[in-house]
Amino acid sequence: MSGHIVIGFCGGSGSGKSTLARKVKEEFKDQATVVSMDSFYKAQPDTTYEQRTHTNYDHPDAFDADIMLQCVKDLKEGRDTKVPIYDFTIHNRSAAPWETVKSTPIIVLDGILLFAFPQLVELMDVKVFVDTDADVRILRRVHRDVIRRGRSVDSVIDQYLKTVKPMHETYVEPYKRLADIIVPEGGHNSVAREMIFALLRERLRRMQG
Amino acid sequence: MSGHIVIGFCGGSGSGKSTLARKVKEEFKDQATVVSMDSFYKAQPDTTYEQRTHTNYDHPDAFDADIMLQCVKDLKEGRDTKVPIYDFTIHNRSAAPWETVKSTPIIVLDGILLFAFPQLVELMDVKVFVDTDADVRILRRVHRDVIRRGRSVDSVIDQYLKTVKPMHETYVEPYKRLADIIVPEGGHNSVAREMIFALLRERLRRMQG
Repeated sequence: MSGHIVIGFCGGSGSGKSTLARKVKEEFKDQATVVSMDSFYKAQPDTTYEQRTHTNYDHPDAFDADIMLQCVKDLKEGRDTKVPIYDFTIHNRSAAPWETVKSTPIIVLDGILLFAFPQLVELMDVKVFVDTDADVRILRRVHRDVIRRGRSVDSVIDQYLKTVKPMHETYVEPYKRLADIIVPEGGHNSVAREMIFALLRERLRRMQG
Repeated sequence: MSGHIVIGFCGGSGSGKSTLARKVKEEFKDQATVVSMDSFYKAQPDTTYEQRTHTNYDHPDAFDADIMLQCVKDLKEGRDTKVPIYDFTIHNRSAAPWETVKSTPIIVLDGILLFAFPQLVELMDVKVFVDTDADVRILRRVHRDVIRRGRSVDSVIDQYLKTVKPMHETYVEPYKRLADIIVPEGGHNSVAREMIFALLRERLRRMQG
């Protein structure tokens, strides 16, 4: 049996999956590492900023699946790995050196399209889908993109209707059926959180002793 | 803090919720009691069998909410209670003496319309919705009603389309949003089961230690 548990949090934009992933990290501290799928957006060399604003970031093709898969395999097999840095402000992979990520007993994956990559799904021991109503999710996204990422309201609405929503319906929602459990409302759902923590604690104990 | 955990398994007919409830009982043995909502179908005195075949058993009004609520309150407050016996073969409450049910640390509630009773929902510490595709559910129901309960295929189809399906859409599906977690596929979902057991074990330890 592997000495590493891979737990994946999948769910739409603004669903609360990243909050839940972060809370696992806060609970298990050095025993857990969070890997965000966002890190694996493809580098887009020889493109202008303007061109990159037209990329469909909600399609599986926007991700470097090979690198992502290799990183998760490394971690699951006990090897530290390196993860690229993505810079949302320039819509591109950062030129900064890749970040070293340690292989910990719990490996948390966080991503909107996580379940749309079958080879990645195979590496997951626990699959959690965070399910939040679309209206709540878009409001969170507006808040995040406008206030924290400095985008215009119009550009957020435009991107949502053009790619986020149709891609959600094609590459996120249908994969809900792969989940072991579905968590309504993500990080703010204390019973679901307690249940996930309890499972991870039991598995850790079994692995460690 | 109460020395009793009430966990409710709600979900459509054939969803697998009763299997999951039974597995909690198998795991926790004397520490757990299962109370099925079916026990609380109203007695229908002064009716013929023929009349009772027309009762809408998928509507909240078919249940004796007061008795149900009192039983669950008793158990949660540490008192043994008595539960009526329902006889599906005669579509009526049995004349048999009510069954004594012991108040155990874990009280498992199992019912299609469980979440449609707000006062009952308030008594639940953990709310699980078991979610299974409607086509799979109806096939299980056909199997159960025809083979185990000796009904005709036509009567099962008729009841399904006339009451089970519309009532599901009105009194089951909308209450999914009350759930702490949603379990796809019920009793056959081993990760979800493990998660629920882990949570119950932790809560038991906290209560008892």
